[in-house]
Formats: sequence, C-alpha cells, structure tokens
Amino acid sequence: MENFIDFEKLGELISTRNYRELRVKLAEMNEVNIALFIEELPVEKATVAFRTLPKGLAADVFANLSSDTQEYIIGSINDQELAVIVEDLFVDDAVDMLEELPASVVKRVLKNATPDTRALINQFLQYPENSAGSIMTAEFTDLRRNMTVEDAIKHIRRTGEDRETVYTCYVIDDRRILDGVVTVKDLLLSEDDCSIENIMNTNFVSVTTLEDREEVAKLFAKYDLLSIPVVDHEGRLVGIVTVDDAVDVMEQEATEDFEKMAAMIPSEKPYLKTGVFVLAKNRIMWLLVLMISGMITGSILGKYEAAFAAMPMLVTFIPMLTDTGGNAGSQSSTLVIRGMAVSEISTKDLVAVMWKELRVSMLVGIALSAVNFVRLVITYPGNELIALTVALSLFATVVIAKTIGGALPIIAKLFKADPAIMAAPLITTIVDAFSLIIYFSVAEKLLHL
Amino acid sequence: MENFIDFEKLGELISTRNYRELRVKLAEMNEVNIALFIEELPVEKATVAFRTLPKGLAADVFANLSSDTQEYIIGSINDQELAVIVEDLFVDDAVDMLEELPASVVKRVLKNATPDTRALINQFLQYPENSAGSIMTAEFTDLRRNMTVEDAIKHIRRTGEDRETVYTCYVIDDRRILDGVVTVKDLLLSEDDCSIENIMNTNFVSVTTLEDREEVAKLFAKYDLLSIPVVDHEGRLVGIVTVDDAVDVMEQEATEDFEKMAAMIPSEKPYLKTGVFVLAKNRIMWLLVLMISGMITGSILGKYEAAFAAMPMLVTFIPMLTDTGGNAGSQSSTLVIRGMAVSEISTKDLVAVMWKELRVSMLVGIALSAVNFVRLVITYPGNELIALTVALSLFATVVIAKTIGGALPIIAKLFKADPAIMAAPLITTIVDAFSLIIYFSVAEKLLHL
Repeated sequence: MENFIDFEKLGELISTRNYRELRVKLAEMNEVNIALFIEELPVEKATVAFRTLPKGLAADVFANLSSDTQEYIIGSINDQELAVIVEDLFVDDAVDMLEELPASVVKRVLKNATPDTRALINQFLQYPENSAGSIMTAEFTDLRRNMTVEDAIKHIRRTGEDRETVYTCYVIDDRRILDGVVTVKDLLLSEDDCSIENIMNTNFVSVTTLEDREEVAKLFAKYDLLSIPVVDHEGRLVGIVTVDDAVDVMEQEATEDFEKMAAMIPSEKPYLKTGVFVLAKNRIMWLLVLMISGMITGSILGKYEAAFAAMPMLVTFIPMLTDTGGNAGSQSSTLVIRGMAVSEISTKDLVAVMWKELRVSMLVGIALSAVNFVRLVITYPGNELIALTVALSLFATVVIAKTIGGALPIIAKLFKADPAIMAAPLITTIVDAFSLIIYFSVAEKLLHL
Repeated sequence: MENFIDFEKLGELISTRNYRELRVKLAEMNEVNIALFIEELPVEKATVAFRTLPKGLAADVFANLSSDTQEYIIGSINDQELAVIVEDLFVDDAVDMLEELPASVVKRVLKNATPDTRALINQFLQYPENSAGSIMTAEFTDLRRNMTVEDAIKHIRRTGEDRETVYTCYVIDDRRILDGVVTVKDLLLSEDDCSIENIMNTNFVSVTTLEDREEVAKLFAKYDLLSIPVVDHEGRLVGIVTVDDAVDVMEQEATEDFEKMAAMIPSEKPYLKTGVFVLAKNRIMWLLVLMISGMITGSILGKYEAAFAAMPMLVTFIPMLTDTGGNAGSQSSTLVIRGMAVSEISTKDLVAVMWKELRVSMLVGIALSAVNFVRLVITYPGNELIALTVALSLFATVVIAKTIGGALPIIAKLFKADPAIMAAPLITTIVDAFSLIIYFSVAEKLLHL
C-alpha cells in the first residue's frame, strides 16, 4: 500500500542535488504521487525534479500536473524535450492540457508535435465542450473480423504499447465501420484458431462524437463498461472513452449539480484555486434574482401591516413558518432533482411524484403542527386561537411546499430547463409567499383582525 | 448501438407463448436490458421469461433484477434451478441479493449452495456495511512470482471463466500474502519466458477489508484503477473491488450527500420505490430540530416587538433579508462541503477558506446592498434612513452568512461530525438569528426606535 509519500526525504534529495538517488526513488513511485510531490515544490525545483524522470514516466506524470505547473515546465524545457512529451501523451490528455494553456504555449506545443499527432490533436480540439468527442482517446486496439484469436493476440502484443486500454478491442471493416467488440478475456478464453467473427459481440453499446459526456458516463454506470466506442455520424469508429475518464465526468457533473442547486454558476476550477472575483461573480447573479423575488414577498407582507400592527406577536412566528416551509419544499425538490440526474425519475412520473409528496406532506405536516400547537399552548396560555392559527398555517404550508417542491423540477424538465435550478433557494422564495398569504388569511379569519 | 428495447415485440412473444423465439431474442440482448424488460412484466410472466434464459445468462440477468423480483422468482423456481443460479452468481452479487431478501428465503438460498459457496457468502455477510469487504468479490486471478508469462497466460485461460475481472492479476506467496500486481497488458507485452517476479509492480495500492467503501471509490478516481486488492490485517489477499462497483458507490455516496444536505436521513431505496411512511420518517426528524431552532429566532424577534409595532414597514423587509442571508451562507457551505467530499479541501484550510469567504462576501454584500438601497430610495422616497438601515443590515448579513457558511462544515469535520449537516437548512436557521439581531440593532440606532 503506497499512499504515503515521504515528501521531506525527496525534497532533501533535491536540495542536496542528489539527483541519481532522487531518480531512483521517483521511478519507484506511481505517476499520480510523483505529480502530487512535484506540485508541492517551488516551480524552479519542480522542473529539476521533472527532468530527473525516466523518459517513459515523464509523460504520465506530466498528464497529472496542474495546468500552471505544466505551463511552467513547458516554458523551461527545450523543444526537443517538449516533442518527446507531446508524443508520449495520450491524445485526450494532450487535449485537456492544451485547452488550459495560453495560445502562445499551445502553438509551441503543436509546433513540436509530429504532423499526425498535430492533426489528431486539432481534430479533438474541435469537438464541443462536454461532448463524447472531447473526452475520448484515439489510442484503441482495432481488429478485423477475419483475424484468428492468435492473430489478434499477436496484433495486441505488437501494437499494445501505446494503447490506453487493450482490454476491449474493436472489430472494424475496411471503411472503419464498427462491426463488433471483443474483450481480451474473450480472446484468452477462446481457441487460438477460432475466428474473431465468431466470438465478437455484435450488439455492443456505442455513442456518437456529439453525445453529451454526462449521458456517456451514465452508460458506464448502467452497463458496467471498461470503455465505450465513439463513432461518427456514419458509424465509423473514431475513438473510445475509457472508464477512468467516465469516473472523472461523474464526479464533475455531481459537483456542478451541487453548485447549481445552491444557486451558483458552476466554476471551472476547484474552490481553493478559484479567484475571489470569479467566486463573487458566480454567486451574485442568482442572489440578485432571489433578492428581488424576496422583495415581492415583502410587498405581499405589506398588505397585512394592519394585521401585525394590531397583533405584533404574529410576526415572531414568521421565521419559523417560512423556514420550515422552505426546508420541507427543498427536501422534496432535492430528492426529485437527484432522482432525475440518476435517471430514476423521468417526466412521465410527474403525477406519481405529486401524489406521493401529497401523502408524505400530510404526515409530516400533521406531526410538525401538532408539536407546534402543544408548544404554543404551553408557552402562551390563553392564546389557543393564535396557536391554532400557527398550527393550521404550518400544516398548509408544508403540504403546498412539498407538492410544489416535488413538481417544479419535473415541470422545469418538461420545459427543457435544468431541473437543478428548482432547488432550495428558489423553492424557499416561492414557498415564502404562499406561507405568508396562508398565515395572515387564517389569522384574519380566526382572530378577526 | 443497442439501447432501444422492443418491449412490445418481446411481450407479444410471451403472450403468444412463442418461447423459442423469445429465447433467441433475449439471448441476443445484454443482461442489463433483459433485466429491465423482465422488471416491466407482471411477476408471473417475469418468471416465465426468466426461465427461457440460457443457463449462462440467467445468473447475470438475475444479479440485475430488483430484490422484489428476485424474491418472487426464487419463490417460484425449484431448489435445483436455484442452486444453479446461486453457484453462477458472483459472490458480491449473491451477497447484495441476500442482504435484501427475507430470512426465510436467505435460508433456502444458502441451503442450495455448495458448502464452499455457502462458507464464502457467510464470510462476506459478516463484513460491516459500507466496508471494502462488503463490496469486494472473491473471483480474482492469483499468480505466483516464480511463474513465467507463458504459465500465467495459461493459468488465466484455464481459470478465467469464472473470474469477474482477469485484467489485473495478483501475485501471492504460499501464505496468500500479496506481493505484487501484474496486468494482462504487462503479460501480453512481455516475452513468454520472462518471469512474473520481474514484471510485477510491487508498489500497488491496496485497502483492508474494513476500509470505508467511499475511501475505496476515491482511490479508483485518484489512481485510475480497474480493480483494487483487499487484504486482511495480516496482508493476506481476500478479495478485490472492481471499478464497476466503485462507480456505483460513488453515485450512491453523492446521492446520500444530496439527501443529508437537504436535511434528510438518506434512504436505502430509490425515491419511487420508497414507501410514504419511510419518506415521512426520514424527513420529520430534521424538520423538527430546525423548527424548534426557528422558534428561538422567533423569540429573538419578540424582543423587538416595540420596534416593529412603531414602524410596521420594517417587517416587510424581513423575508428578503433572511432569505438572502440564508442563500449567501448555503452557497459557501455547499462549496466547502463538496470540496471536502472530493478531498479538495481539508481541515487545515479553515483559515484560507474563511479569509477567501470574507473577501468574496464583501464584494457580494456591496453589490446586493447597493441595488437594494437604490431600489428602496426609489420606491419609498423620503425614507432614506430606512433604505440605509436595510442596506447596511443586508451587507453585514451577507458577510457573516458567508464566513459562517464557509467555516462551519470544516469545524464540524474537526469535531468528527459529518460536514454535510452544515448545509443550507441549518445555515439558514443560524443566519436568520444573526440577520434579525443586526437588522433591528441598526434600526434602533438609525431610526431612534
């Protein structure tokens, strides 16, 4: 188990210029941890450490560095060294890198790539952001249907070196149309002279280059895949997406949902690496929208000034009432939004969800208002009518909040909007208005204000 | 691309009892889609359809069925058929199934398993929930260090049939201590006579049976693994976790966080399959806690009755003020909670986070209160002091909300509590109290109430 890295020991080797020893130590570590170590170093030392890496390992480590460090290293190595790295990088890693780097650096990188690599990278850079094309890799193993298992294994042994994954092989015809899929397991478990044609799986899952990367990741989760073929509009195989990239996509998409559901514009970088102004920019817009809606709620409240001027005590229950309504509503909307994100709930379930939320909200509403009523009767003896007003309003608020909260995300989806915006913040604002209207209408009736 | 399933055609084959045709059609489909199809059928037909499946496929499909359907099918097949399925299931799938089934059914399943399988299943059932042991599988390929590449490939070809993944092989000694890891890629790219010892990777990542499954999933994301070895406290290899199970864990853990952050007790089953009473039970507890905290806020508000009795208009700004504070706070807490969940933020970043949130909140606060001030001056001419009161309170509220929102999740973690509870609902309730105190203190000063 090698999760622990002795940063001190390694740092010491650098400061004492003991590069031979360092080279040995690093060569024993895996690329992720080496990258973590290099990130910790002051930039100039980072380059020194990077230079000590054996040729094969350098590119793997490079792919795991932050774009800032990548940029610095590119700036401090010569074209020859750069060329080696670019050629060794998997195309999808190279593309991820170039998308982050300033144009001038990108130019230099492409200048030092072979024409083929350059053509491939340029092609990849053209796929829309968040598309299958943008996360696929071109390093896959392709076979022909008339090969034997023996041929296939020979072919893999010959070409496997620079393939990101060799475990699923793709059978294509002369026009590169994808005919079938063969796993290395199939190959190993078949006779040498058996023909690929006979063991290939012809009803495989595939996606097109323009497919949304989130949908691609869902296919991995649904079918337990290690890789998925990406074809162009004519069914020609152009690349594959590997499970490790799908895992990253799942994590990023979940993070984006968390951010949207908290009324923020999702940010590109991790929190600690995002600037103060960007963070502020991402948050202000929605807060403004919600604040203005909040003003509307305020003006509704204004209509009842007479009521709470006559009975100021009523005001003291407003926070409890609106907060509980908001919380009850966002519980429901959260479950539905997440349910849709993982494809457990679809738009056709609208009625089922509302019916379920209606029943749940009744149970919850009764429990909460009962507790509330008892507590008020105890703390404010002689004010049973006020206690009843609060209890009744609370019940109605919870029921409306949960029904709305469950329905709005699905309705948003029906209108092709992102369900995630129908989360806590917006639901709370909407429910506030309802709860206050209910509260004071009940008050006016029961307390004759 | 076979994501489309012709349910109608297949259903027709069943109603017309055309089982031969059905068998052919199903055999062409993959297990996930067959399971989806069977789930759609009325239970009795589900068994009929299931029975038509070829022996090999039956277990794979069975593993993909819901526990309800599994239970029904087990109830309607004979012990012999059951025995076949149990033996064909991968141990981890069998265990997942048994954890859902009623004791009586579990007994019958175990009765029909071979002694070895039964022992293995029982052992797996003893690992704590959410531990690496509970999601690992016992079907892995083990090699010895003195084997040659040729031996190893032969070994895989002989035993690979019932291995869940053959792509990463584990090198163990006579005491089953894990010495190293060899990928099939390594094997294929090495000479036949080369010894395993020389190509195996000895600094591999491994986990113990009791490791939290969420930590295991993180290792997959961090190191781009296809499988990870699970060892007991003596370093003996007892099983492996495969990436497809890690993907499921990631999805479930994210869902749990969404639920916790919306003040709910995470539910075992998907929303649509969860009963009304369970849903209500999962939601009431937190709503009660928050409602009672809301009452405290109310009593704070009570102290200022004189103030808003004298100037009822002040009340109309309360919802806007408290909601904006709540939203601003939960934006910050959400980013920090998620940041910690994906290990981008750790407890040592507390000060960095607070300093960042302080600066962000200043920017956001200035923007919001400026807009608010202008709007109030326009709508309520002559009430500049009230406008100023609201604007100043809003600024202070946003700053406090964001600083608290950013800090509390980390502080919770410091006290070994789950950061996810410091999300929107609790933050809102806490911020409410602060914002109201600020609001009315400022009002009393500026408006001499």
